[in-house]
Amino acid sequence: MAARDTFLGWVGKDVTAKDGNLVFEEFEPKRWEETDVDIEVSHCGMCGSDIHTLSGGWHKAEYPYVVGHEIVGRAIRVGSKVTHIKVGDRVGVGAQSDSCGDCEFCNSDNETVCDKFVQTFDSTHLNGDRAQGGYADHARVPGAFVINLNPYPNIPSELLAPMLCGGITTFTPLKKYGAGPGKKVGIIGLGGLGHFGVMWAKALGADEVVVISRSKSKEADAKALGADRVIATNDEPDWPTKYGSSLDIIVNTADSPTMPFTDYLRLLRPLGTLVQVGAPDGNMPAWNGSPLFMKNRSIAGSLIGTRVDIREMLQLANDKGVKTWANPFPMAKVNDAIKAFNRSEARYRIVLINEKHAQKI
Amino acid sequence: MAARDTFLGWVGKDVTAKDGNLVFEEFEPKRWEETDVDIEVSHCGMCGSDIHTLSGGWHKAEYPYVVGHEIVGRAIRVGSKVTHIKVGDRVGVGAQSDSCGDCEFCNSDNETVCDKFVQTFDSTHLNGDRAQGGYADHARVPGAFVINLNPYPNIPSELLAPMLCGGITTFTPLKKYGAGPGKKVGIIGLGGLGHFGVMWAKALGADEVVVISRSKSKEADAKALGADRVIATNDEPDWPTKYGSSLDIIVNTADSPTMPFTDYLRLLRPLGTLVQVGAPDGNMPAWNGSPLFMKNRSIAGSLIGTRVDIREMLQLANDKGVKTWANPFPMAKVNDAIKAFNRSEARYRIVLINEKHAQKI
Repeated sequence: MAARDTFLGWVGKDVTAKDGNLVFEEFEPKRWEETDVDIEVSHCGMCGSDIHTLSGGWHKAEYPYVVGHEIVGRAIRVGSKVTHIKVGDRVGVGAQSDSCGDCEFCNSDNETVCDKFVQTFDSTHLNGDRAQGGYADHARVPGAFVINLNPYPNIPSELLAPMLCGGITTFTPLKKYGAGPGKKVGIIGLGGLGHFGVMWAKALGADEVVVISRSKSKEADAKALGADRVIATNDEPDWPTKYGSSLDIIVNTADSPTMPFTDYLRLLRPLGTLVQVGAPDGNMPAWNGSPLFMKNRSIAGSLIGTRVDIREMLQLANDKGVKTWANPFPMAKVNDAIKAFNRSEARYRIVLINEKHAQKI
Repeated sequence: MAARDTFLGWVGKDVTAKDGNLVFEEFEPKRWEETDVDIEVSHCGMCGSDIHTLSGGWHKAEYPYVVGHEIVGRAIRVGSKVTHIKVGDRVGVGAQSDSCGDCEFCNSDNETVCDKFVQTFDSTHLNGDRAQGGYADHARVPGAFVINLNPYPNIPSELLAPMLCGGITTFTPLKKYGAGPGKKVGIIGLGGLGHFGVMWAKALGADEVVVISRSKSKEADAKALGADRVIATNDEPDWPTKYGSSLDIIVNTADSPTMPFTDYLRLLRPLGTLVQVGAPDGNMPAWNGSPLFMKNRSIAGSLIGTRVDIREMLQLANDKGVKTWANPFPMAKVNDAIKAFNRSEARYRIVLINEKHAQKI
């Protein structure tokens, strides 16, 4: 049996990783298949899932981890069965790295709900090998889930990387539920996800984009991102009635188990949909169903987005000049970046720049 | 000022009405307008809302009430502005009796979410008068919400009346979310609503119709109604995994605050929708959002159905021979009927027959 390939990357070895204790060392990528692409990583966004995984928050942790699923870089090896990428192309990978490719969901561009969904890290590839992410010099990813970025030359890699998970998570529900001309959109929570939500809703042409936040502290940011106004729930106790039935689509990025979920539903117009993208660790908040029943409103779940959606999002960003608010860190300082993330200092998305490779892209 | 018209009907005068203490006496219908129709009531279904209203369960009760919103009878007076009904026609009225007629929802056949929604009882007409229902010799209803039943000669009035609220409440979500060939449908709870749900799903051509119930006690009924199988949650502790991801559409008629809501969501296939039509008095049960987030499932609210939906439902029932399981009571014995209802004896829908008028229809 041949020796396994090794890459160098920032490895989480135990639970202290979550506090900024990654170690730069060798790790084993999946074994090479002719359907794979090797990527020289130039940029990787930092996503809440990265830190949550390192902490073992969702399930029993399986160290060592190389996390990171907002990957941009250059293709340096392309499997013979991959036809849409050639060596040297700028490419990107989001939170999904594989699926069965042949079920009704894969065949209808709904591969994010395929039973064999493979995550970019904290997951197992279809060949049985561990999936490892993009806090690394190199990443090996099934080519079917490697996006060729040539059509989007206007988006710098530093701004593009965070779109591949943080961006698509809000773009997909906005697109699916019809954000655009004639529609009013609410974004609950202004963080890494919410800041994208505001920009997408605006770029898609929504009539009005409203940020719902506890305080006015981020009002200037919200407006700079394109929001028309901010509802500060702490400042206006009558907000559920004052702004009731005013929004067609709400994307809820909040995940507090005590958030006022019933009142959020009251903000929806009849027939409107609240898409929950923030995922509480435990149960959803208590809620009363009346606002749902009385006006035919809906609550929808939405997990990241498909490759069709990613390409549509990138085209929109490319054409409309959507600019991620990115906070860059050299990848060599990833542990400082994790500490800044944990202190909630990101406004609004941390991006690791692998300086060994970034100048080539 | 002219004296108000009076009708005779079964009046709820205080909270004892809920236990079967209606009194046959005069009451005032709304004042006549040339948009109205007077109906000689021959049949009126008994709906849970009737008893809930008599008990003051939803809000402070405003006695006297004449309840009943599954009305069938003969038009005996037709306003000069009503064009689709003539004196003598068999007509029906469901739970909605008016709307503004001119908002975006009314103009798009979504009048059930119009801001000026008027309920058939326990509500106020647009002219300011109290709305009174169909446990009566006569009912006066705005013509726009009186359905001409001439196109449905195959449906006896006794079977048709309960379709006008109980029936449409399950038909509308099944139609909206695509129940039909290629789809598998779940109906949670086999009662007045659920028994219709099974029959509609079958009549719409769903591949499979599954009843989810606590026990097998109603299995024979479920199968006689057309269900392919019953999941008895008390008998199969592993039901959420055993039957996970198996249903495209679920209509949940249950309203217990302790029902296993998260597990119900797990029964949905990816992209599937659970429509909640049972309305708990207080909060919804506690639930975990993971089944929603991970597979892009949705929870939808649905309130009764529009006039377009009612006509489509009746055409289906007329053409496919859908037969309500109706338990008839003479309207003169309405108080006995209420007691039977309260003892949960209905299998599955009580219908009051006004014997003074029933032979004419």
